[in-house]
Amino acid sequence: MSVQLNETHNPALRSWVNSANSSDTDFPIQNLPFGVFRRAGSHEQFRIGVAIGDQILDIHLAQQAGIFAEVTNSALANALAASSLNALMNLGNGVSSQVRLALSKALREGASAQEKLVGALIAQVEAEYALPAQIGDYTDFYTSIYHATSVGKLFRPDNPLLPNYKWVPIGYHGRSSSIGVSGQQFRRPIGQTMPPNAATPSFGPAKRMDYECEVGIFIGQGNALGDAISIDQAEHHVFGLCLLNDWSARDVQGWEYQPLGPFLAKNFASTISPWVVTIEALAPYRKAWQRDAADPQPLAYLEHADLRTSGAFDIQLEVLLQTEKMRQDDLSAQRLSLSNFSHSYWTVSQMVTHHTVNGCNLQAGDFLGSGTQSGPLPEEAGSLLELTEGGKKPIVFSNGEQRVFIEDGDSIIMRGWAQKDGAPRIGFGEVEGRLLPARSF
Amino acid sequence: MSVQLNETHNPALRSWVNSANSSDTDFPIQNLPFGVFRRAGSHEQFRIGVAIGDQILDIHLAQQAGIFAEVTNSALANALAASSLNALMNLGNGVSSQVRLALSKALREGASAQEKLVGALIAQVEAEYALPAQIGDYTDFYTSIYHATSVGKLFRPDNPLLPNYKWVPIGYHGRSSSIGVSGQQFRRPIGQTMPPNAATPSFGPAKRMDYECEVGIFIGQGNALGDAISIDQAEHHVFGLCLLNDWSARDVQGWEYQPLGPFLAKNFASTISPWVVTIEALAPYRKAWQRDAADPQPLAYLEHADLRTSGAFDIQLEVLLQTEKMRQDDLSAQRLSLSNFSHSYWTVSQMVTHHTVNGCNLQAGDFLGSGTQSGPLPEEAGSLLELTEGGKKPIVFSNGEQRVFIEDGDSIIMRGWAQKDGAPRIGFGEVEGRLLPARSF
Repeated sequence: MSVQLNETHNPALRSWVNSANSSDTDFPIQNLPFGVFRRAGSHEQFRIGVAIGDQILDIHLAQQAGIFAEVTNSALANALAASSLNALMNLGNGVSSQVRLALSKALREGASAQEKLVGALIAQVEAEYALPAQIGDYTDFYTSIYHATSVGKLFRPDNPLLPNYKWVPIGYHGRSSSIGVSGQQFRRPIGQTMPPNAATPSFGPAKRMDYECEVGIFIGQGNALGDAISIDQAEHHVFGLCLLNDWSARDVQGWEYQPLGPFLAKNFASTISPWVVTIEALAPYRKAWQRDAADPQPLAYLEHADLRTSGAFDIQLEVLLQTEKMRQDDLSAQRLSLSNFSHSYWTVSQMVTHHTVNGCNLQAGDFLGSGTQSGPLPEEAGSLLELTEGGKKPIVFSNGEQRVFIEDGDSIIMRGWAQKDGAPRIGFGEVEGRLLPARSF
Repeated sequence: MSVQLNETHNPALRSWVNSANSSDTDFPIQNLPFGVFRRAGSHEQFRIGVAIGDQILDIHLAQQAGIFAEVTNSALANALAASSLNALMNLGNGVSSQVRLALSKALREGASAQEKLVGALIAQVEAEYALPAQIGDYTDFYTSIYHATSVGKLFRPDNPLLPNYKWVPIGYHGRSSSIGVSGQQFRRPIGQTMPPNAATPSFGPAKRMDYECEVGIFIGQGNALGDAISIDQAEHHVFGLCLLNDWSARDVQGWEYQPLGPFLAKNFASTISPWVVTIEALAPYRKAWQRDAADPQPLAYLEHADLRTSGAFDIQLEVLLQTEKMRQDDLSAQRLSLSNFSHSYWTVSQMVTHHTVNGCNLQAGDFLGSGTQSGPLPEEAGSLLELTEGGKKPIVFSNGEQRVFIEDGDSIIMRGWAQKDGAPRIGFGEVEGRLLPARSF
């Protein structure tokens, strides 16, 4: 599919929600990401909302106010009144695009709906979030060649980048049940590790705790078992993107991962940001995707002309760490890295098409991780394993604290945004998660 | 937990459903496996049933007939009226044991409930099945050391059994969406492979199609994220067992599986048997589980006194193949192998405990595969890859046909049963699945 701009992308649009017109908001009227929220601390049913400035528009209330009158049918009415995005995702991107247009019209300066909608707003600081969708299956890819190479060097010094990497968008299945939304806190995992030069494994809390900075991909309309999604149709099946922290216990991983891949090193927790930015909202930030001329070109099923002009996404990805002491001293989180999703060796379309080429069925609400997004420069690495060269080179913070891996009480914060002159900033908000001490054992 | 027999195991029990008293039925009154069914070809809601002889007792109708009056509360009443087993599984094995006892009493010869229940029976030949539960997450283990060694030899001749095998119950996450119930038919998957001595990968239908004979494990009550399930509690969290065919495309697997494990080689289809045999029903068939004295003993979290007396299950596992020609010629399926689940190097309890030791949360209806159950003898191998020594030694059938891998139109049938003198046969029924030709591409 080729990327097209429509009236929702108009940079001149302003909203009657004032905070949405600020140049540094993640959520201007051109963004309109979807999420699932309720009043913090309440026992209300979770419901669907859209972020606008520092507010959330309650979509069910907006529906009751009549703003979707032009697009509504009973399937959509039910989807908009649901407590997760699965049903809306399942209706396909054509429908969510219509919903987005109706929201854009209703939230514009001068919109007649303003009066009816004021009561449908809730401040983001007063909200809490649930996962945007019930995630049936979660697949994690491995699309950064810089990450694959530098991690490969640490796990297999003589064989860092395997021969399949430039042909196959490598992916593997992950754990759905332990995916949580930003704010997730979890205990340091306990498990088996094999210390260097030891004869028998050790058992206890993992020592090499790490994060992985990834882009998360929510599937919209799926495919039937046995059908494949062609590369030119792939983005029609992607509802939108968010941020993903794929927490990792490196010492557990090193001991368990052969021959069937990581398991307990990854499935104790994964944390995602609450807002799903639609593929449509990101249209101004599409970028040419081009391989090194020296690299093999993708096989035909993974190749499409549009990939060469607009296959990539120009999304900045920032990782920060805040220790318990920083929180106590009111010091803000410190940056660990800044990279960009456009460095990805494989595109979102290629992930979707490869995943289904064998007939595997994707379902609305399924979730893909991009894999750790490390860029070509050392300071663009998306994990501590890479930034500290396997735990050998500590990161020293401005308050004198230092880290090689994550310590108990540390928070990891990831932010993502797309920004350029002449177009509004399309932000992802943030995903924050915190490591708690291991349980007693 | 130690294994205890109760009145439902009494070998002298007979049912007023005559077919349940036959010595070769899989489903005597001492079994009572749970499944989800409806009248074949109908659009009825699927509902929960229990297999008895060649019949199914509709549990919702049985409830209306009052046979659970002694054990019912509103949560159980809802669970028994549901269209999947998740809610019953979530109530824990104490509750499903009470349900089983009530069923045993109502189905016995002379039971006063007989008259009320006759109308709640449907013949199995008139039924079709759904998955017993909505499967949130599916994890596949690798518990046969014979399989791991012989497959390891084919994929890694110089390094067949990796050093972690005898310490870690190796497992990895699988795909839930493509799990189907017996009768599943699916197209030969298409994908990338790297032919021997080729410089670039090929693309097309997989050529080395295989099955894997596994035991499937349905989780009952789960655990909260961050909690672990101790080895002595593990079986309280297992609802029951079934049969699993983990279809595999070996040529896809060989090219894609490093470093993150099998993906498209496995996720196009997996087929399970419709009936879930409870852990309780298998009590007479528990067996001592003992490692070779020369092998390392499991770490403490995986070790428990009961494992030494009753950790294993004495379940026969048979695999058969029926070609299209055999079907046309009315020739019955031909046996490929016969093995036993008691050869497993790791127990069901060890799988559950290992899976949660890091705090990973299991949920009711989650599904574990045991991994291919190959025994020590060549004819006990649970896959064609092993039986044909990597496709080099064809299997010749009585009608002259031969196979190294599965061909289009072939059905694979797996059966499982536990049997010994003085105890009734506890059968699993069968799981059948068929490979269709690849889609055009």
